[in-house]
Amino acid sequence: MDLKELGEFGLIDLIKQDCIVDASTVVLGIGDDAAAIIPTKNMLQLISTDMLMEGIHFDLSFISPFQLGYKALAVNLSDIAAMGGMPKQVVVSIALPKETKTEFIIELYRGMKELAHQFGVNIVGGDTVSSLHGIAINVTVIGEVTEKKLQKRSEAKQDDLVVVTGTLGSSAAGLALLQKGEYTTCHFYDSLVNAHLMPLPQVVIANDIANYAHSMNDISDGLASEAKEIALASGLGMRLYAEKIPLSPDLIVASQALKTSAVSYALYGGEDYQLVFTIAPEKYQLLKQCHLVNNITVIGEVTSQNGVVELVQEDQQIVQLESKGYNHFI
Amino acid sequence: MDLKELGEFGLIDLIKQDCIVDASTVVLGIGDDAAAIIPTKNMLQLISTDMLMEGIHFDLSFISPFQLGYKALAVNLSDIAAMGGMPKQVVVSIALPKETKTEFIIELYRGMKELAHQFGVNIVGGDTVSSLHGIAINVTVIGEVTEKKLQKRSEAKQDDLVVVTGTLGSSAAGLALLQKGEYTTCHFYDSLVNAHLMPLPQVVIANDIANYAHSMNDISDGLASEAKEIALASGLGMRLYAEKIPLSPDLIVASQALKTSAVSYALYGGEDYQLVFTIAPEKYQLLKQCHLVNNITVIGEVTSQNGVVELVQEDQQIVQLESKGYNHFI
Repeated sequence: MDLKELGEFGLIDLIKQDCIVDASTVVLGIGDDAAAIIPTKNMLQLISTDMLMEGIHFDLSFISPFQLGYKALAVNLSDIAAMGGMPKQVVVSIALPKETKTEFIIELYRGMKELAHQFGVNIVGGDTVSSLHGIAINVTVIGEVTEKKLQKRSEAKQDDLVVVTGTLGSSAAGLALLQKGEYTTCHFYDSLVNAHLMPLPQVVIANDIANYAHSMNDISDGLASEAKEIALASGLGMRLYAEKIPLSPDLIVASQALKTSAVSYALYGGEDYQLVFTIAPEKYQLLKQCHLVNNITVIGEVTSQNGVVELVQEDQQIVQLESKGYNHFI
Repeated sequence: MDLKELGEFGLIDLIKQDCIVDASTVVLGIGDDAAAIIPTKNMLQLISTDMLMEGIHFDLSFISPFQLGYKALAVNLSDIAAMGGMPKQVVVSIALPKETKTEFIIELYRGMKELAHQFGVNIVGGDTVSSLHGIAINVTVIGEVTEKKLQKRSEAKQDDLVVVTGTLGSSAAGLALLQKGEYTTCHFYDSLVNAHLMPLPQVVIANDIANYAHSMNDISDGLASEAKEIALASGLGMRLYAEKIPLSPDLIVASQALKTSAVSYALYGGEDYQLVFTIAPEKYQLLKQCHLVNNITVIGEVTSQNGVVELVQEDQQIVQLESKGYNHFI
């Protein structure tokens, strides 16, 4: 069935199922002029919004509707994680060409609900409209954080350690593999492509990190760009060490096949949705006790040089990093 | 200067000015991974989101960037008004073709800020991305309401009066005038076109109405559709009287020129962003004491017929209304 037959109200009925995970915070979900929710007392509310455009942010020949729904929510949950918060409520706007099949939307929402259920997030509203050209998806997430845990970009302190979660660069290499359309039978293919198509937002670990860190960003635009943002906002610098940047074994093998250095994928590739944060050395020791040390990696330190992010390369040459990373806009 | 030269960060610096009207509720505005705000104690939070697509919801040959920005915010403030709430915070996503001029965005934001300042609303964040085809704008508004004033669609009571604010149908006639490109020098032209391009959301009057009403909708999709929504959600019916529907003198003259009945513009035209609400007769008397009676008009009553909205036509024939109104989707 296509959307024209189903109609807007038929579509809303389909979408509404399984949208509310935590009913205790929802007075009104999908179906009125606005959703009404109950915020938790004494918490700050976080608001993050992201728009994904077909042909710019995704290519339906690479990504399934399920994966697209999952990812559209993931990138927003990642923003809430980067503030030290927990995501709570989501509203979703979708613009679709008239010929879109109902199955596409059901799959898109199934992907979103998969991730929403995993993190206890309610889908409380949205807007579904038609589009003349291609699909547009906008997700707005409302999260919550205590004032103490709020991770501002501007609060890095001199001599903090610079730490990242997970491994970096896999998503960009996965995109390169998809675009090339080769190496599909290689052992590294699935893990890298999956890192690109279905990134897991680091909400859980962020919630622990926020007890100790000074400042945090999610790595959506590449490490170079995110490190530079923290440095500039904090009026400080950073020195990072290329050999310390965590890379997956699959990335290292694939980067040889792709003839691009693994570190450059990490620095400029983007869309890893891991976290970079700065933390006092003594607090890092406390944090390590909460988590397996292989989940977080020290890659450098905060320096006094206003806005300057240096990279000590593997050959010990020092270069300055610029935020020429993956940029949705330019 | 075009966007490519300015860059995303240059653009953000331009946009950021004058975004915060009420700083007391904002911990972090534009410039981090998410905005952080302080919700008012013991209030429910309202969330409304709307997406406007070029070629579907607006035509840049009719609407200026200033008016487009104004209207993109207005339609969301209207949703918050319809819940009985006050809008507080806004996040804005915009997708723009690469060749968009900087002036376009400045004007778009100037239109939004004009309305935001009028209602004390902060623009606290957003996302600016590029688009392959045309412009997409998504606005999400966070509002607040007390539990007592929350206006659910489903709470109409039998024998309530059905009441509307302002006059209806002017916006649709204004659009028809723009599309025809005629009558530009007629005395009715400006008021009707202005009703379409720059509708004023009824936030202030809604705030008083919410003290007395049982249920409320904003009239975005035409009176027929909005009345039907309340009737269906409440499991009741409505009887409306065509001769009581408030129409502006300009609409009455223009509708003759346009060869379409003024009442049909009101019923099916949409985009008036006035309010339709149901209220007990004795409460209506109290409400009238708050407001000039010419701002609100009784147009019918709530009946027991589940989901049936009847219209008593000017010839006293009774017809059933269907929600075949202006529909963004189909």
